[in-house]
Amino acid sequence: MKYPLGFYSFGKNIGIKDESLDFAVIYSQQICKAAAVFTKNNFPGAPILVGRDHIKSGKLQAIVINSKNSNVATGDKGIEDARKTCEVLGESLGIDPKSILPSSTGVIGVPLPIDKILKACSEAKDNLKEGNLEEVANAILTTDKVSKISSREISFNGKSGVIYGMAKGAGMIEPNMATMLCYILSDWDSEEDLYSELKSCVDETFNCLSIDTDTSTSDTVVLMSSGKAGVLPDAIFRKALHEICLDLTKKIAMDGEGATKLIIVKVESAKNETQAIKIGKSILNSPLVKTAIYGGDPNWGRLVMAIGKVFDEPIPYENLEIFFGELSVKEADNEQKVLLSTYLKENSEIHVTVKLGMGNSSKEFYGCDFTEGYIQENAYYTT
Amino acid sequence: MKYPLGFYSFGKNIGIKDESLDFAVIYSQQICKAAAVFTKNNFPGAPILVGRDHIKSGKLQAIVINSKNSNVATGDKGIEDARKTCEVLGESLGIDPKSILPSSTGVIGVPLPIDKILKACSEAKDNLKEGNLEEVANAILTTDKVSKISSREISFNGKSGVIYGMAKGAGMIEPNMATMLCYILSDWDSEEDLYSELKSCVDETFNCLSIDTDTSTSDTVVLMSSGKAGVLPDAIFRKALHEICLDLTKKIAMDGEGATKLIIVKVESAKNETQAIKIGKSILNSPLVKTAIYGGDPNWGRLVMAIGKVFDEPIPYENLEIFFGELSVKEADNEQKVLLSTYLKENSEIHVTVKLGMGNSSKEFYGCDFTEGYIQENAYYTT
Repeated sequence: MKYPLGFYSFGKNIGIKDESLDFAVIYSQQICKAAAVFTKNNFPGAPILVGRDHIKSGKLQAIVINSKNSNVATGDKGIEDARKTCEVLGESLGIDPKSILPSSTGVIGVPLPIDKILKACSEAKDNLKEGNLEEVANAILTTDKVSKISSREISFNGKSGVIYGMAKGAGMIEPNMATMLCYILSDWDSEEDLYSELKSCVDETFNCLSIDTDTSTSDTVVLMSSGKAGVLPDAIFRKALHEICLDLTKKIAMDGEGATKLIIVKVESAKNETQAIKIGKSILNSPLVKTAIYGGDPNWGRLVMAIGKVFDEPIPYENLEIFFGELSVKEADNEQKVLLSTYLKENSEIHVTVKLGMGNSSKEFYGCDFTEGYIQENAYYTT
Repeated sequence: MKYPLGFYSFGKNIGIKDESLDFAVIYSQQICKAAAVFTKNNFPGAPILVGRDHIKSGKLQAIVINSKNSNVATGDKGIEDARKTCEVLGESLGIDPKSILPSSTGVIGVPLPIDKILKACSEAKDNLKEGNLEEVANAILTTDKVSKISSREISFNGKSGVIYGMAKGAGMIEPNMATMLCYILSDWDSEEDLYSELKSCVDETFNCLSIDTDTSTSDTVVLMSSGKAGVLPDAIFRKALHEICLDLTKKIAMDGEGATKLIIVKVESAKNETQAIKIGKSILNSPLVKTAIYGGDPNWGRLVMAIGKVFDEPIPYENLEIFFGELSVKEADNEQKVLLSTYLKENSEIHVTVKLGMGNSSKEFYGCDFTEGYIQENAYYTT
């Protein structure tokens, strides 16, 4: 896999919880234009508070990440720890601490093992290797089963560069162990403002994702662009960025805690985007729709229920069309039910399409089925 | 158990799905004052549409109920079937069909076996027995494990009467098999308007209940009052009605699909009722809070997350106090965590209290834990 030019990184174990990789640094030779979006949870973690401050300049040169401890609900000490982490890393790398974004994921309400982290920061420079980003993608995982990477190589005007994204998250968020984190690194710059590029892509992808309706206190998506490969027209940059965000969104949904199937809900012919979002999320988050898909049961009444429970967006029943894949489910007869059940059982990617017959807005949403595995993962884990 | 005077009923099997009781009639010798509240789902079942019409007069003399088929999403034929049911029963009982409320619960999108139902209606008069309401409480069940009855005997001014409630529902609603239905029969009348009595009690009880966030297309709560025992002052009538609704709410939560524990969330010192409802429901519906309680894990970070994800109701973190039972959970040390874990593991009724420190509003919410049983019940049932 090709890396964007000028990025160095490493992941290592520093013993925060167990033997797995739990600490990572990403460093760019030159200062990057950068943008980030963070959790909307009203109790954001300390790294979010510090990160929001550091990203204000629109510049970043490094990211420092630990897994297995989220540094959330840790008070002033937590903020001090996040700042100190940036300071010691800045010293090691010879860069401004304010050009570093700190990021943490894992258990909530437990102080960071700050001595271990500061030691790792002070030794960081020697650990850096060119590219090497798979190691970072592994070090940020918690309950994830697989690492999640998506990149695009783009040639333009005789130059070649790479936009490289990595993410973690096995719940759309679980404050204990499954925060969503995403880092996107690029040697291409865009002619457009990076924040608006990122925000528009995130709204269509990560913000349309739900594993379990619970919103982490640590969610973070960061984009860093060194511009080493040059500047891309907005349309080309945005297309690649959107594809990467969508890829990672689907990978997170597919790796949802306990999930066996990726569910893609498409709401079509909605009155407007708000209506599409309310109805799409109601379907995507319905435990009964999610368990029916898990069980391969073409129980279309549950879809009708999930659409109907959006009290403030009534849809005439006659208008409504619902499909699993290409198969119509509304008022399915027994023969059709057999086909539907086969579709649900034989595919690991389930497409649900709902046509509301109200207007011209449409939008897609990404989630997963709901299984005993989710319960087990979250009931038997002890803090 | 004592019954309200003048009510007759029966439950029987008419072979809608299996051998269990699936059909019931409640009849009052005299016409009753009555009130009802119905599902807010935008796709209500045919019996809801007919019932809304029949209750307009504020009078009822009978209720006819079948389980195992909800008569939802059955089009004009469904409405015709519900009307026909009332007509044939009215003829058998010698009462106005419009004084009968029809009610159905069970699978969605399948036409009623109307011939079986009409035959049972035509024979209804001979089946009626005085009181006998336990038989009805059994006949209305679907995925419920136990029947749910709560009644109060009230003596006033030398007279004695009974308010008797029964309910079913094992999901806050599951359109397949677990609609919430509740019938409350009384020989006491109230000096106040019955609808406002009922509405205010339902808002404090059933409307604060959630098993799984899914809202049925058939939910119904009906109150019939014959007045045979006389008229009660509002305060006495409302207190008894509230206690009965609360009892039944807790019984439904405790019998939630797969549930092992009743969860009572109390939000205190909220700014206003809206804030209390948003935060209470966010906690009650969080899969991560529900699985933590199931697993006996005093994972207080999940409660912080669930409060924080109500984006439009920010609470200063310093203000926040959280308790399991009498035990404070916020920033619990290891010793306190052992006590908390013991509390969660050794009780089947878990009290979560959240103090927001914002004002004087408080409200309670009722739900249950989230287990493999819920997944199994809903994934492996095939329509």
